[in-house]
Parts: sequence; C-alpha cells; structure tokens
Amino acid sequence: MTKGHETRTAILNQAIDLCSEVGLQGLTIGELAKKAEMSKSGLYAHFQSKENLQCEVLDAAASQFTKSILTPAFSQPRGLNRIEAMFNNWLQWGEVKLPGGCPFIAAASEFDDQPGQVRDKLVEHIGNMLAMVARAARFSMEEGHFRPDLDTEQYAFEYWGIILAHHNYFRLLNREDADQRTKKAFEGLIARSLNPS
Amino acid sequence: MTKGHETRTAILNQAIDLCSEVGLQGLTIGELAKKAEMSKSGLYAHFQSKENLQCEVLDAAASQFTKSILTPAFSQPRGLNRIEAMFNNWLQWGEVKLPGGCPFIAAASEFDDQPGQVRDKLVEHIGNMLAMVARAARFSMEEGHFRPDLDTEQYAFEYWGIILAHHNYFRLLNREDADQRTKKAFEGLIARSLNPS
Repeated sequence: MTKGHETRTAILNQAIDLCSEVGLQGLTIGELAKKAEMSKSGLYAHFQSKENLQCEVLDAAASQFTKSILTPAFSQPRGLNRIEAMFNNWLQWGEVKLPGGCPFIAAASEFDDQPGQVRDKLVEHIGNMLAMVARAARFSMEEGHFRPDLDTEQYAFEYWGIILAHHNYFRLLNREDADQRTKKAFEGLIARSLNPS
Repeated sequence: MTKGHETRTAILNQAIDLCSEVGLQGLTIGELAKKAEMSKSGLYAHFQSKENLQCEVLDAAASQFTKSILTPAFSQPRGLNRIEAMFNNWLQWGEVKLPGGCPFIAAASEFDDQPGQVRDKLVEHIGNMLAMVARAARFSMEEGHFRPDLDTEQYAFEYWGIILAHHNYFRLLNREDADQRTKKAFEGLIARSLNPS
C-alpha cells in the first residue's frame, strides 16, 4: 500500500465508525473532519463531495463485510457448514464489530426515498449480498444438503428478514431473547430447506 | 373535536407525511412550518420542542396504524381470518397509504443509538405492535387454528422479519417480486403454525 492509500483507508475506517453511530445521512465531510482531526479542505481533496464520501464508505463497509463474514466462512467446505459459519459471523458483525450496527441496514431506510448515487450504491451492495446468500443456498443444493426444489430467492428473502428482525430486537428493543429468537428462526429456515433424502 | 384539536390533528397528519419522506430525524419544527405553511412560533406553541413533535407524530402514526390495519381486521372473527386480514392491510399500509414507507421501520434504525424520549416512544410502539402480533397468534391457538405448542413470541419475531424484508424489497430494491416473496413467506409461517389435527 502507498502512503496515500493507507491514509485513505484509515480515514474510511473512522468514517465507517461515525456512520455506524450517526447514520449515513449524518456522515458529512465536516463531521468526519472533527472525528479524524483533519481539515475539511484536506478531506474535500480526498473525496470531492459528501456523496462520494458516502459511497466510498459503503464500499469500505462492504469490504469489511467480506473480510469479517465471507472470507472466514470460505474456509468451510461449500454447503451447510459454510452457511452456518456465515450466519454466525453475521451476528457477530452486527453485535460486536460495529458498535452502531450494520451501516447497510441503517442506510436502507434513510435512502430508500432519495434517488441518486448513494441509493444506487446501496442497492448494488444489498443486491450483491442477497445474491451471495442465494448462491450459498444453491451450492448447498448442489452438495445435496438442501432439497433440490428449494426456491433459493425465497430462501434469501427469508434469511434477510431474520437478519433485519435481529437488528431490531438486539439494537432498538434491547431484547434479551434477541439471539435465541434469531438462532431459532435460522434453524427453522435451515430445517425446511434440508434435503429429506 | 374542538377547533384546537382539529388543527393539531391536521398538523400531525402533515407531519406524518413529512416524516415518511425525510425520516423522523429530518422532522424539525422548521421543516414542518414550511410544509404546513405556519409560523415556527405557532408550531412551537403547539409542540414545545422537536422531541415532543417527534413523539406526537409517532403516537399519531400508531393511531393511523390501528385505524388502517387493526380496526378493519377486527371485523373478522378471532383466529386465522383475522390474522390474514391484518397481514393484507399491513402490506397496503406500507405500499399505498404511506408514500414514504412505515415511519416506525425508518425510525428504528435512526434512533437505536440515541437514548431519550423519542427512542423510548419507538420502543413502546414497536413493543406494543409485536405484543399484538403474538396475541393474535394466541387467539388463533385458542380457536384451534394454530397448534397448541406454538411459540407465539417466536411467531412474532418471524412475522416482523417478513414485514421488514418486504419494506426493503419493495422500497429500496424496487423488486418486482417483493409482494410475491412476502406472501409466500407469510404463507409458510402460517403453514408451520397451523394445528395439524
């Protein structure tokens, strides 16, 4: 990594933390300048506009997601083991690694009404994530773990519902049973996806 | 209704629309004054603070929810019919009646990190809503429609996940299959809750 690249990465990591607390809307160059103890003009030189900064933060958060959730799960063989590893990492990501919660979930409601490059970027990342979930289910079918007639798009929809409900129960409602409910829902989804033979 | 009460209701309806577009964070007395074509000082006299306004908007949205979703469903007998009517009204509410989407879902991510009266109000309303969903499932057990060992708290968690995933698929992702996926997930939840006898 060049020095410029390292600086950019360090700034983006601080921007992810800030965004996780105040939302992507609240992530302005002015606020980031305070947090990163840099000048606003210096940050403008890096990112040009608030929208570019927000898009780069989403890209950086997606890289963190890959590193924290996908890459470790890929050490498991294709199929059920990998799906279970991915799910466990996913809960960890939302609960421990990001003190302010998943930036994609927070931004989804903030930006669903606001056409533009940030919304497009969100749709791209959440779309990729859902496609990845469906693909993991397809691999699991190919391995014979999931039943051959599974609707993998439906699987991804229901998986996403579980992740979203967990985010609500854990973060907003502070429910003690958040993890237990989430795991039970996931086990149910797996049980009804399994190959009976 | 007194004249003062009517005025307040009219203002709150405009505030719900505004909040549905810009989020509860964006709902300030200044923005509402522009939309309602009233003076800021007049609105301060009504609501005293931004936080009071936000809390009253959540109360008013909860009343709309009751009127649009619960009251019409209560014309159905307790049990499965009522649960199905409630679900159909629910999708309508998010898609048609509120052009900017459900204010509770949007606010859930905005306020989960911000202790205070607005967050407390949100937790109260979303908690009541989840309790209502669990109660409807319990009535359905008592009617013999749902199986006697159903975990109604788990049912409510999974129901809420379906509503949240629908909000994402329909609003952010603009997925054409949003309704189809949502209905299929709901039918699955009902099928696994039914009394086999």
